[in-house]
Amino acid sequence: MPEQEIIKDNTEEVEKMTLLVFAGDLDKILGAFIIATGAAAMDIEVRMFFAFWGLNALRREKCKTSRKDFLSRMFGWMLPKGANKLKLSKMNMMGLGTSMMKRVMKKKNVMSLPVLIKTAQELGVKFTACEMSMNIMGIGKEELLDGVKLAGVATALSEASESKTSLFIS
Amino acid sequence: MPEQEIIKDNTEEVEKMTLLVFAGDLDKILGAFIIATGAAAMDIEVRMFFAFWGLNALRREKCKTSRKDFLSRMFGWMLPKGANKLKLSKMNMMGLGTSMMKRVMKKKNVMSLPVLIKTAQELGVKFTACEMSMNIMGIGKEELLDGVKLAGVATALSEASESKTSLFIS
Amino acid sequence: MPEQEIIKDNTEEVEKMTLLVFAGDLDKILGAFIIATGAAAMDIEVRMFFAFWGLNALRREKCKTSRKDFLSRMFGWMLPKGANKLKLSKMNMMGLGTSMMKRVMKKKNVMSLPVLIKTAQELGVKFTACEMSMNIMGIGKEELLDGVKLAGVATALSEASESKTSLFIS
Repeated sequence: MPEQEIIKDNTEEVEKMTLLVFAGDLDKILGAFIIATGAAAMDIEVRMFFAFWGLNALRREKCKTSRKDFLSRMFGWMLPKGANKLKLSKMNMMGLGTSMMKRVMKKKNVMSLPVLIKTAQELGVKFTACEMSMNIMGIGKEELLDGVKLAGVATALSEASESKTSLFIS
Repeated sequence: MPEQEIIKDNTEEVEKMTLLVFAGDLDKILGAFIIATGAAAMDIEVRMFFAFWGLNALRREKCKTSRKDFLSRMFGWMLPKGANKLKLSKMNMMGLGTSMMKRVMKKKNVMSLPVLIKTAQELGVKFTACEMSMNIMGIGKEELLDGVKLAGVATALSEASESKTSLFIS
Repeated sequence: MPEQEIIKDNTEEVEKMTLLVFAGDLDKILGAFIIATGAAAMDIEVRMFFAFWGLNALRREKCKTSRKDFLSRMFGWMLPKGANKLKLSKMNMMGLGTSMMKRVMKKKNVMSLPVLIKTAQELGVKFTACEMSMNIMGIGKEELLDGVKLAGVATALSEASESKTSLFIS
């Protein structure tokens, strides 16, 4: 009775979604979190894996770091520190476009990125930071938001492999 | 007999594909429409959901708008109006790269973007515009091509959840 | 006996993954190959389809070409020739960011892109180049690495349709 099994499969398992967040631009991170919170609200189990520039969205605004090596310090200093510092991928215009976008969002009652991130966490969205990217970009665990786990690409891939939908946000 | 229905479901159902079009660059929009028309020609049911910069591909070239608010007017004025105005994401070189690309495509008999869009519509590809993005970017329904529906992110997510393949084009 | 069926399922069909590589930036191509080699190491059958800027990752460094037409020669001359010439999508800073990234990767024992590409090939990852993109960008088969096949978008789409996970890397 293969029919029965199919039903078991469908009813027992929660639908899953994996977002591989590679980009670090305000607009793309907003898109990722709008998808994540939307899916979580639909009872989809959402896992976000942050790699490369995507890590910037998870950085704390103020944080002492213990970096000693020059190249890491350079990267750490140049990369935006957290959700409030991200810029638009287009039309940033020295910050004008970015601040315009933020004002429009506020006016139209769209949640800001920091609020979206908090909402995602409250809805049970899991955040994982890519260890290899942290290593390359010289970002330490103490610089990331609470509740972020570290893992390698194999973890992200096995999560993607269990997911109905996986999206690469670059 | 729910078993039977599920089986029916699996065998009768047409394969679906969802494209989440976030980018608004000529090259990426071309890529999205080449995938969409290719899949539709293979009898896959294709749904394209346009958000953020992706909306620019759906704008009419000439269109009076009823925008009153300053920030929306600014965005509306700065963003490219329609498929013919999009630029390459790389090597635009003040428009030179973009026009070179268009000339090469014409010479090599590759369909131009406006033709690809029309072909997609003729093949039954469904276009949906993200309401929240339209709201943020101050784009009204009257500015979009005919046949474009408006919907929220929940619609896109449930379409993605029904699809064999979902791609995020950013 | 639900166990049996599930096991059958797992053993009979190999899990597949399709990466549609559209971007040509060092960071994004690195991301694509880290995913590809990671998945191949997990016994997933990985197919990479390179289109548009993505083709640059497959170009040989030195190669005589037989291009005659002016526009193609322009494109061929301006586009980066192979994995060693790619630049970061952000913070390239006239090459400084890119060379910093490469130095950091070397220091932290992360495989360089040329090594990752070779590893992917050794792990059985299949590389396909998009014929239409080659035609538009004036890139000939003799300019690409050994073992790269040419195919149209229909091939990529049917591979994606067979795959558990498909990602668009743009």
